[in-house]
Amino acid sequence: MLDFSDMSVIDVHCHPYPRKNKLSADEWVDEVSFGGGSAEYLQAGGIEVDAAAMAMLQRVKRDTLYFRYMLRRLAEYFQVEATVDAVVDARNRAIAEQGYAAYAHGLHQAGGITALIVDDGHPLPQVDLKNFRAQVGVDVVPIFRIEVLIQQLLDADCGWAEFQRDYDDGIASALSEGGYKGLKSIIAYRTGLDIDPRSRSADQGMVALEQIRRARGRGGDAVKQLRDHLFCRAIERCIDYGAPFQVHTGMGDWEVHLEACRPALLMELLRYPAYRACKILLVHTGYPYHAEAGYLANVLPNIWCDLSEGLPFAGNAAARIIAEVLEMVPISRVCYGSDTYGSPEPFYSSALLGKQALAQALRILIDDGFMSRAQAYDAAKLILADNARQLYGI
Amino acid sequence: MLDFSDMSVIDVHCHPYPRKNKLSADEWVDEVSFGGGSAEYLQAGGIEVDAAAMAMLQRVKRDTLYFRYMLRRLAEYFQVEATVDAVVDARNRAIAEQGYAAYAHGLHQAGGITALIVDDGHPLPQVDLKNFRAQVGVDVVPIFRIEVLIQQLLDADCGWAEFQRDYDDGIASALSEGGYKGLKSIIAYRTGLDIDPRSRSADQGMVALEQIRRARGRGGDAVKQLRDHLFCRAIERCIDYGAPFQVHTGMGDWEVHLEACRPALLMELLRYPAYRACKILLVHTGYPYHAEAGYLANVLPNIWCDLSEGLPFAGNAAARIIAEVLEMVPISRVCYGSDTYGSPEPFYSSALLGKQALAQALRILIDDGFMSRAQAYDAAKLILADNARQLYGI
Amino acid sequence: MLDFSDMSVIDVHCHPYPRKNKLSADEWVDEVSFGGGSAEYLQAGGIEVDAAAMAMLQRVKRDTLYFRYMLRRLAEYFQVEATVDAVVDARNRAIAEQGYAAYAHGLHQAGGITALIVDDGHPLPQVDLKNFRAQVGVDVVPIFRIEVLIQQLLDADCGWAEFQRDYDDGIASALSEGGYKGLKSIIAYRTGLDIDPRSRSADQGMVALEQIRRARGRGGDAVKQLRDHLFCRAIERCIDYGAPFQVHTGMGDWEVHLEACRPALLMELLRYPAYRACKILLVHTGYPYHAEAGYLANVLPNIWCDLSEGLPFAGNAAARIIAEVLEMVPISRVCYGSDTYGSPEPFYSSALLGKQALAQALRILIDDGFMSRAQAYDAAKLILADNARQLYGI
Repeated sequence: MLDFSDMSVIDVHCHPYPRKNKLSADEWVDEVSFGGGSAEYLQAGGIEVDAAAMAMLQRVKRDTLYFRYMLRRLAEYFQVEATVDAVVDARNRAIAEQGYAAYAHGLHQAGGITALIVDDGHPLPQVDLKNFRAQVGVDVVPIFRIEVLIQQLLDADCGWAEFQRDYDDGIASALSEGGYKGLKSIIAYRTGLDIDPRSRSADQGMVALEQIRRARGRGGDAVKQLRDHLFCRAIERCIDYGAPFQVHTGMGDWEVHLEACRPALLMELLRYPAYRACKILLVHTGYPYHAEAGYLANVLPNIWCDLSEGLPFAGNAAARIIAEVLEMVPISRVCYGSDTYGSPEPFYSSALLGKQALAQALRILIDDGFMSRAQAYDAAKLILADNARQLYGI
Repeated sequence: MLDFSDMSVIDVHCHPYPRKNKLSADEWVDEVSFGGGSAEYLQAGGIEVDAAAMAMLQRVKRDTLYFRYMLRRLAEYFQVEATVDAVVDARNRAIAEQGYAAYAHGLHQAGGITALIVDDGHPLPQVDLKNFRAQVGVDVVPIFRIEVLIQQLLDADCGWAEFQRDYDDGIASALSEGGYKGLKSIIAYRTGLDIDPRSRSADQGMVALEQIRRARGRGGDAVKQLRDHLFCRAIERCIDYGAPFQVHTGMGDWEVHLEACRPALLMELLRYPAYRACKILLVHTGYPYHAEAGYLANVLPNIWCDLSEGLPFAGNAAARIIAEVLEMVPISRVCYGSDTYGSPEPFYSSALLGKQALAQALRILIDDGFMSRAQAYDAAKLILADNARQLYGI
Repeated sequence: MLDFSDMSVIDVHCHPYPRKNKLSADEWVDEVSFGGGSAEYLQAGGIEVDAAAMAMLQRVKRDTLYFRYMLRRLAEYFQVEATVDAVVDARNRAIAEQGYAAYAHGLHQAGGITALIVDDGHPLPQVDLKNFRAQVGVDVVPIFRIEVLIQQLLDADCGWAEFQRDYDDGIASALSEGGYKGLKSIIAYRTGLDIDPRSRSADQGMVALEQIRRARGRGGDAVKQLRDHLFCRAIERCIDYGAPFQVHTGMGDWEVHLEACRPALLMELLRYPAYRACKILLVHTGYPYHAEAGYLANVLPNIWCDLSEGLPFAGNAAARIIAEVLEMVPISRVCYGSDTYGSPEPFYSSALLGKQALAQALRILIDDGFMSRAQAYDAAKLILADNARQLYGI
């Protein structure tokens, strides 16, 4: 048996969360679960949201393996029965007794988490990072989501000269005095990952913005051309600042379009000469298309992959994702991440799952003659913390 | 060890079959195997179908793991040697001795199968369900394949007013006095799963049909637009009747186009507000793209997945498919299915494979801390029968 | 435990290599590793190639599981420490002591390799096969890469009459007096696998070539139409000569476009009546899209899959690839291959990995009731050598 439970963890991709001291069982499930729809989703579909519908939504959320794993680990942590009611009750009591910060810090510490690299572009309105830092008691390293800035500039109704200047300035100030250690893009959610690498000319931005402004919401391809341009421009800023660029690939929530988020779509862009100097982290390593992300990280030299979202939200996928990512990605290019949000509990159970799954995956590699036991411990240290530490200079 | 061999099974997706009392070894292989081509396939390719070619076809069919598994389970059942000749001989003798119905019922009973939800759109001409029911001795619940009706209406050469009325009436009468418990579509085989959700306007149907009628087989996109419309219309009828809609995704036979059958293509449609109230079952859970189907069933609340066709025809894939489907699909949304046809034997061996693979997959989940042993038995009951029972009100 | 270590191996897909007696550690890594970029790649991206950059490139290459496995197996072979320096030193010394041919032959023999089916279209300039044969001391069976001929004819600046004649003659002479036992295409690297099956008319070739000639590099779709035509024409020649056609699918190096190399794109072509008589080998079984290749080899009767490139370059993927390929591909249709190149060492470690992974995959099939122990040994013989022997008439 390999045991990595004492190792420290840097979560390379997650989200800050607002403090919620007391939650009902159903509220807590909504806060920490993944998928499964919502009352709003049903209502927009003309479905009557009665008690039965609400019970169905809760059931679907509670019936995933992700949720069951978290519940069982938390029951062990609190030493209560593995039911939602018992766990939520224990959580609320612990916060009431210890205070939120001590409680949250305790959970992060129990998971060995020493730093969180957070995308504060979700949730909106943005969580105040100073408060969040105090609340979790671990190092918090923010990354800057370009789509928040892009939306502000689209709303601002300015011309291209101003848009361009404010975009560059916004990124520059985030990466210098703003304390952000890198950029992040969710273009996969917007116009998709089939970004034309030839979009970096400012002319493309200017013409596309003009079309959007004139057509008022009927921009058609112009929206894509503008976003493609701003994405390429963000890569260039990352190169200027030596900052890594996190790019969402693969699974997201119900709003992502699976076809538009495949890592393979990025291949032309990532190998385009002008962008080769940028350090790219393929967020979620593109699960369920993680083999594609892994391939990119093998044949191109400046690509990192994180394990987030698939781990923990795809439940029992964790060990499989790690094993399959390691089929092609160099060990020095894989980072632990969770994409967790909402409350401290999933940060904790995700770290436990990550360590357990990593131990399983590496155990098999030892047995099959791919590495020694000592090399497995080295690999675990790199994946759980040191690769992220090196990438972000923490 | 988990042992689910005594559990009852509802096969949520399979096909009725005509009675064939005596088969030669080669005939039986053709009847119960999957893939591998046929004399007709070779002939259409200008290939001489001599004895060597026929032997090659037989060999390819017999050399799959699906076939080998079935053969070994049947050899155990009949207590004969695991060769095709011995098994077919035992089968023919058993039918001669016991009669077809007693033989078929015995095999279904030995597999624990208590109900078959059958798509009687295959084979054509349609198998008489009253006879089939008597023949298999288990509950037979039919679902209505819309493409059979669509073909009749296309052949009927009527105008849109009549087409529209007969389409709606055909579905209505199937779901009411016809005894059908839901609909089924194989649009993936026809114009593909990239169905435009905005196709529900009757205008689209009218214009498309008119183009098809005028162009006489040169309808181009009109065929797709008509099928898209009729698919959306079928969803609306399912919502009216509270009936589930089975949609073919993923693997089929040699006529399916893999690119057009990916579950990801359905995402826009399934989350379209107008269709959210419809209970959709993604047939075959899209194997080999089952991760995509699983994702849809996680993030959208009204989606079911069945395990059919991958299990049993992808042989040793069974445990992997179950494990990977459970990565994202809530336990209450997964149904056993086989897609078997032709003769009672694969129904039996498929049920055995399903139970064995489920035991393997759930065993690992217990070991890895995702569920308790009691929860594994509950999950098996849901997957093998109760989820289908609830979905179809059996 | 199954043990196939004494079985003989035919490598159905690999490349000849020039003789290099003495290599530095870094040179050897470059020669036998996969992926990870190069100084040229970085330079073209405007990245300064200093010592740190070179060290980074080396690290990425050495940090893959593929590389680690090879290193450990070679350390055992040479009985030295598992470090690059020790292994390269042992290699150089062995060549100096034994001579290159004895050394290379020894490694091939230790892996049980009795024949190499080589695509001599890589590396360029082409390796002299007579020298190579003497050098490796095993049977060397060449296959003819059509893209080498196509490039020569494009460079020759001839008209269609001459192009067409020289193309047919080039293939004919390769397959007759040239000693080539089949064809190979890397069209996936050029215009992609979405080849229109209706491209076999010579008219398409003529018009496309004329457009290319007139437009001088601005041929647009004409290049694709010409390549599609020449591909279909090559299939017809393969049918004439009864020669197998190897088609690259799936992973390659950094120049492949993942989206254009999916085996699913070939489905329309492979089932097109005119091409059904051609024996097609899907090279690399399309990894990471091997499920698609497997599906084609199940539902269509004249398709073979080789395990190369995924095995060994995807490291620990080997057993998974084999297991997943066997989900659908008949046992008589799977061939061992490596796609190795550069130096004898990876040929050896790849054979070891193949035998080990095959033993693991078949062990599970025995345990799960898919085959007997005797059938597992039969299957191993077929996959490691006999299927290739039969396909190529060796």
